[in-house]
Amino acid sequence: MLKRNIKKHINKLHQKKYRKEYAEFIIEGIKGVGGALESNSNVNFIVIEEKKKEDKNILEIIKKAEGLNIEIHYCAQKDIGDIKTTETFPGILAVIKYSKTVLLDIINDKPIICLDSVKDPGNLGTIIRTADWFGLPNILLSENCVDVYNEKTVRSTMGSIFHTGIYQSQDIVSDLKNLTQKDYSIVSLTMDGENLKELQPKKNNIYVFGSESHGVRSEIIEMGERYTIPGKGNAESLNVAVSAGIVLKKIVVQK
Amino acid sequence: MLKRNIKKHINKLHQKKYRKEYAEFIIEGIKGVGGALESNSNVNFIVIEEKKKEDKNILEIIKKAEGLNIEIHYCAQKDIGDIKTTETFPGILAVIKYSKTVLLDIINDKPIICLDSVKDPGNLGTIIRTADWFGLPNILLSENCVDVYNEKTVRSTMGSIFHTGIYQSQDIVSDLKNLTQKDYSIVSLTMDGENLKELQPKKNNIYVFGSESHGVRSEIIEMGERYTIPGKGNAESLNVAVSAGIVLKKIVVQK
Repeated sequence: MLKRNIKKHINKLHQKKYRKEYAEFIIEGIKGVGGALESNSNVNFIVIEEKKKEDKNILEIIKKAEGLNIEIHYCAQKDIGDIKTTETFPGILAVIKYSKTVLLDIINDKPIICLDSVKDPGNLGTIIRTADWFGLPNILLSENCVDVYNEKTVRSTMGSIFHTGIYQSQDIVSDLKNLTQKDYSIVSLTMDGENLKELQPKKNNIYVFGSESHGVRSEIIEMGERYTIPGKGNAESLNVAVSAGIVLKKIVVQK
Repeated sequence: MLKRNIKKHINKLHQKKYRKEYAEFIIEGIKGVGGALESNSNVNFIVIEEKKKEDKNILEIIKKAEGLNIEIHYCAQKDIGDIKTTETFPGILAVIKYSKTVLLDIINDKPIICLDSVKDPGNLGTIIRTADWFGLPNILLSENCVDVYNEKTVRSTMGSIFHTGIYQSQDIVSDLKNLTQKDYSIVSLTMDGENLKELQPKKNNIYVFGSESHGVRSEIIEMGERYTIPGKGNAESLNVAVSAGIVLKKIVVQK
């Protein structure tokens, strides 16, 4: 049976304020926990469902975790309701300590993907995963984006949270202004911009994608160029993660 | 207060078997219900939250629905728990009658988007929305895809369910075999295909996207060509809706 204090700790991490206070988040599943161990993340502890501890994949994780001196706790089936984040608990979770990022962490020789007011955790996670796929690891979030350490976001990144640099701004407009003074250019994806095919990718571009309901805020749009993914049908707009995928592919692959 | 039989009817439609039996599904929200009315869908009835009936957008819907002789029921706040499909009920829903499609309905002069074993309702809905955006309205689902009339799927289509032709196969392998004998070619998106940039879009192509966990089944892959979206980073794969977006954009826009 799982210790009370461990249960309590995990439960607190379901809330954003405690994730922030402890600088910790939860990742579930073999792939997620395995990815954390492989990426040298700072794993605080791992919880494994008692009856799954003989599974081949879980045995491998146990071995690796023991080698790294990471605490492992075992839980009974009746503990699961108290700790799970997904509907069907995949038998394993890890609590990860994260280090706070600063804006400088995402300043390098690659463009920046900026999200303005993206509220859906699945969309945020999918965009992080897509950015990782295309080798574009610099992600800048506006102050009002959904928390990146939200369990749904973490899950949707499919492990890419460990391969990308993500900085959540306290004031996105002022951060972007500063960046444009340091030679960055703003490229916003809007409904009324130039055709995306005209876009010339540059390594000092910041590509900004807005929320589904309101798009990129006008203060940001006015800082630079705007482009649109041309459509032919009846849909009013594209999902923001799909838009980001199309633009990131264009930046990286060109054709 | 909402009549008991209406509540019961709506509740049944939360289950796939009743959606199939009645050939009906639920759509929530002003955009969804508005879209249904505009697209001349067969609306069985509409339910509106009593206290929202003076809202400007809802008043417009009421007017339009009355013009079309569509039944409107009003519900009290305490009814909502019994009927809602989303966490926060947006004040309005409609029950739509759908007509069963056949394979022939998606055979025309445009390519077909085929989904093999896509289980996530959000991904299915997002792909339908994306296909609609790019003017590619022919969608073919394998027998084991998630139900297209699932409430989450319907919601993620953002109204595009009314602008696309969707046929769910009873036996996808045999349907695809038949189509290849009728001059269609199969193009599967896989992890080990040719670079997507080599793809020559043709109007008689069927583009097949597989489930996130297993990809396109090998029986289908073997029927035609395979292509891959080239990546550079660490992510193992792309989300299927993002992949579909990138490919559909390539088919339609080329550059």
